[in-house]
Amino acid sequence: MAARRHIISVLVENRFGVLARIAGLFSGRGYNIDSLTVAETDEPDVSRMTIVSTGDEQIIEQITKQLNKLIDVIKVSDLTGDQYVDRELTLVKVSADGRSRSDIINIVEIFRAHIVDVTPTTLMIEATGDEEKLKAIIEMLRPYGIQEIIRTGKIAMLRGAGQS
Amino acid sequence: MAARRHIISVLVENRFGVLARIAGLFSGRGYNIDSLTVAETDEPDVSRMTIVSTGDEQIIEQITKQLNKLIDVIKVSDLTGDQYVDRELTLVKVSADGRSRSDIINIVEIFRAHIVDVTPTTLMIEATGDEEKLKAIIEMLRPYGIQEIIRTGKIAMLRGAGQS
Repeated sequence: MAARRHIISVLVENRFGVLARIAGLFSGRGYNIDSLTVAETDEPDVSRMTIVSTGDEQIIEQITKQLNKLIDVIKVSDLTGDQYVDRELTLVKVSADGRSRSDIINIVEIFRAHIVDVTPTTLMIEATGDEEKLKAIIEMLRPYGIQEIIRTGKIAMLRGAGQS
Repeated sequence: MAARRHIISVLVENRFGVLARIAGLFSGRGYNIDSLTVAETDEPDVSRMTIVSTGDEQIIEQITKQLNKLIDVIKVSDLTGDQYVDRELTLVKVSADGRSRSDIINIVEIFRAHIVDVTPTTLMIEATGDEEKLKAIIEMLRPYGIQEIIRTGKIAMLRGAGQS
């Protein structure tokens, strides 16, 4: 079976060591994590982790089963194959002087991104979207000189009225 | 010394197990991680981790030193005390029917958030901002019935022309 990218959403008790145990489960099987985010949910005792990992179906299924066995894990959902909305946030610092600044501002507006800091030699841009959109804006900014990129990694939520 | 919230930015080689080792370093000292994001940078071999943790200065300093000793760690920056821009992305699914939908759309516009999915009984909202802004929009949406919240956790970038 071909390897493909999976988005796994994990609801966990917010306890010491749960992140280390889950990260260890992936690395123990030799699977890298493309991106991971973890933050509190609306209940401070419960956190939501969103893990993006590439692997064949069988191994991802094994990892999902192992995750379900961990005592701090409340719920595991592999969103792959479901209808979901996925989003990512990025901050990009790009070189900008008097000549290039207005060109960069045009790009920012086309992508409905925002300028969040400015110096005589740089602009900092905040952009939100799916992977394709963020790739596209970064490629448009690249010729001006990208100094730094920070990305959150993906989060994803099921479309419709159901819960992940 | 009083405990306060720290934002630590860590540049790492994108290798198996690096996340597990770093998460283990925090949990081994009994320090919880408020939020953590990790994603590839512009170089596919290098990832950037942003960790938000609360602790007193001395312990955070020890953790920073330990992080610097890890073989896969390229650079550690504690942004606390510096001038930085921090941002977070959240998806919120809220109950909405014919009567409440336009009220919710007004709130979404005030916060410059976006509606990314709609059903006869729900709306899914994407919002970006700092912690205070996201808290404020969530409190405004709460009376309508929040069904699900997913957050990326914070990323942060130094203001000005310098690099983290």
